[in-house]
Amino acid sequence: MGILSMDAAREVVVRVLQRAGANPAMAHSTAAALVLAEAQGLGSHGLSRVAQYAAHLRNGRVAGDAVAVVRQSRGGAVLVDAREGLAFPACELAVDEAVRRAKEFGVAFAGVANSHHCGVLVDHLRPAAAAGMVGLGFANSPAAMPAAGGKHPIFGTNPVAAAFPRRGAEPLLIDLSLSEVARGKLMVAAKEGRTIPQGWALDRQGEPTTDPAAGLEGSMLPIGAASSPKGAMLALVVELLVTALIGAHFGFEASSFFVEEGNRPRIGQAFIVIDPGALAGASAYLDRVEVLVAEMLKDEAVRLPGARREALRRRAEEDGVVVPDAILAEEAR
Amino acid sequence: MGILSMDAAREVVVRVLQRAGANPAMAHSTAAALVLAEAQGLGSHGLSRVAQYAAHLRNGRVAGDAVAVVRQSRGGAVLVDAREGLAFPACELAVDEAVRRAKEFGVAFAGVANSHHCGVLVDHLRPAAAAGMVGLGFANSPAAMPAAGGKHPIFGTNPVAAAFPRRGAEPLLIDLSLSEVARGKLMVAAKEGRTIPQGWALDRQGEPTTDPAAGLEGSMLPIGAASSPKGAMLALVVELLVTALIGAHFGFEASSFFVEEGNRPRIGQAFIVIDPGALAGASAYLDRVEVLVAEMLKDEAVRLPGARREALRRRAEEDGVVVPDAILAEEAR
Repeated sequence: MGILSMDAAREVVVRVLQRAGANPAMAHSTAAALVLAEAQGLGSHGLSRVAQYAAHLRNGRVAGDAVAVVRQSRGGAVLVDAREGLAFPACELAVDEAVRRAKEFGVAFAGVANSHHCGVLVDHLRPAAAAGMVGLGFANSPAAMPAAGGKHPIFGTNPVAAAFPRRGAEPLLIDLSLSEVARGKLMVAAKEGRTIPQGWALDRQGEPTTDPAAGLEGSMLPIGAASSPKGAMLALVVELLVTALIGAHFGFEASSFFVEEGNRPRIGQAFIVIDPGALAGASAYLDRVEVLVAEMLKDEAVRLPGARREALRRRAEEDGVVVPDAILAEEAR
Repeated sequence: MGILSMDAAREVVVRVLQRAGANPAMAHSTAAALVLAEAQGLGSHGLSRVAQYAAHLRNGRVAGDAVAVVRQSRGGAVLVDAREGLAFPACELAVDEAVRRAKEFGVAFAGVANSHHCGVLVDHLRPAAAAGMVGLGFANSPAAMPAAGGKHPIFGTNPVAAAFPRRGAEPLLIDLSLSEVARGKLMVAAKEGRTIPQGWALDRQGEPTTDPAAGLEGSMLPIGAASSPKGAMLALVVELLVTALIGAHFGFEASSFFVEEGNRPRIGQAFIVIDPGALAGASAYLDRVEVLVAEMLKDEAVRLPGARREALRRRAEEDGVVVPDAILAEEAR
């Protein structure tokens, strides 16, 4: 394990990914995203993914020679084809296009087809916020949650993200998956021999369970599942937004990211970018955001979304990030 | 109580609203929406609202002479001003504009400022689905839920809606508020002397409560609040989408709809309309939707969203709707 500057860590990851078959643009874009995630304390989407992506590149689940392209567009709508490569260069191109088109047409929708795991969804929206625009992000992932009333997994945990720029402050960065809890909480409960609440998971037969081990073999439940089908409905909305409109694959058609063998997932991402200048105006927008932030902060315990991540990121820019031995060994090989 | 055809029920409501001060266009648009809600079995957003809207018209919380106008636009983005009238004609204009602009620019965002209660959110998206387009809807409402970690209500229950057209079948119609449960569930529990689960509500001091009466005096909690701040984050996203971009008021700035006195709420709605033809193509979109629907229906207990409402609506078109005596008396007055 070594502590490297973010630049040096990126270079290490670039070399590992290139050696696994990624072209230079794919390796650079992916390395930047993974190191940024690690710097923000989001380890599960950070350097722990390097070995996974490298394995997928090696065994053909990812096309290392893919170059993302714009396949179709009309006004504010644009369809990017990731061409079965890693997701990062395609998402970068999609948000780039969306920002440019939102400037011209007020709003843009950019879809990414034939894609793969996109890492920290909200990070893709940072360029939109930097351009003074509001960004929304949606993605699907291999099946993990059932439809409302269903017994078998269909939808991914289907994250939703949003970035809202502020006046003279870091943007509000919101990023959440639509499962009631992450699988990690089941793993912890299983290890500690505790039961889990109703509404977290179903067992392999699709029945509600309070046994974390049974839940890990079954499906995760959507947010609020103990009370209503609302979370499953939100997961359905995200699933359709990032597949049907774009021609991407459903979560139930994609092999898990956590196995080396399997298909090319061909899942989708979608980004919506909106220019406040085309609506109430940039200045009115920024004023309104500050009024809401002030109201939120009247409660002492309220933290603004993204604040903790941003603080960690700034610290990592000074202090560097921890790069696991396995990656350093792989690079030195 | 009388059973009237939907046409006749609309005429009754039009007369009551006009007598309360609504102009003809506002009265017709509102009556059509309330009768449609009633026909779908959505009583809380149906004819029970007639007296409320009439009271707001009479005491100046709604401007009966307001005519909704397009105040600002660029490409796919358009800002509609409801001018403090009832929300329905403004939402109709907004979705109309959005569908037209999505045809031209692939995607559209239509915001409604200076608005009021918008009834069944997803019903506003029906024209988008009828035009073969995907629609998303967002709205805020008077403060009912705290921010993540907060003690006082800031956000409304902030509904999210989506309409996805299908090939040769009714569109999928999704509509949900972001509270874990509706206030009605607390009322039922209070009446039956039952406690409520953690994660449903806070008391007036902002502390978690299992006492439904204390919850009714405090705040509702967002979806999934027992496990995480995700629901509060979703409520924040909706709140900003329908206010800051549009120049509308926050939930905490608006008086309750359920009191006769109070301010003009000036809250907001937003609609996003996306043309599949500008992305993967209409035919690919419709194919993909049917693949997902078939997968969902493999589980016997799964019902498609909107199916029950549509069945009730079709029955009401034959059999009529129940119009309460109070409305008939008000009309006959």
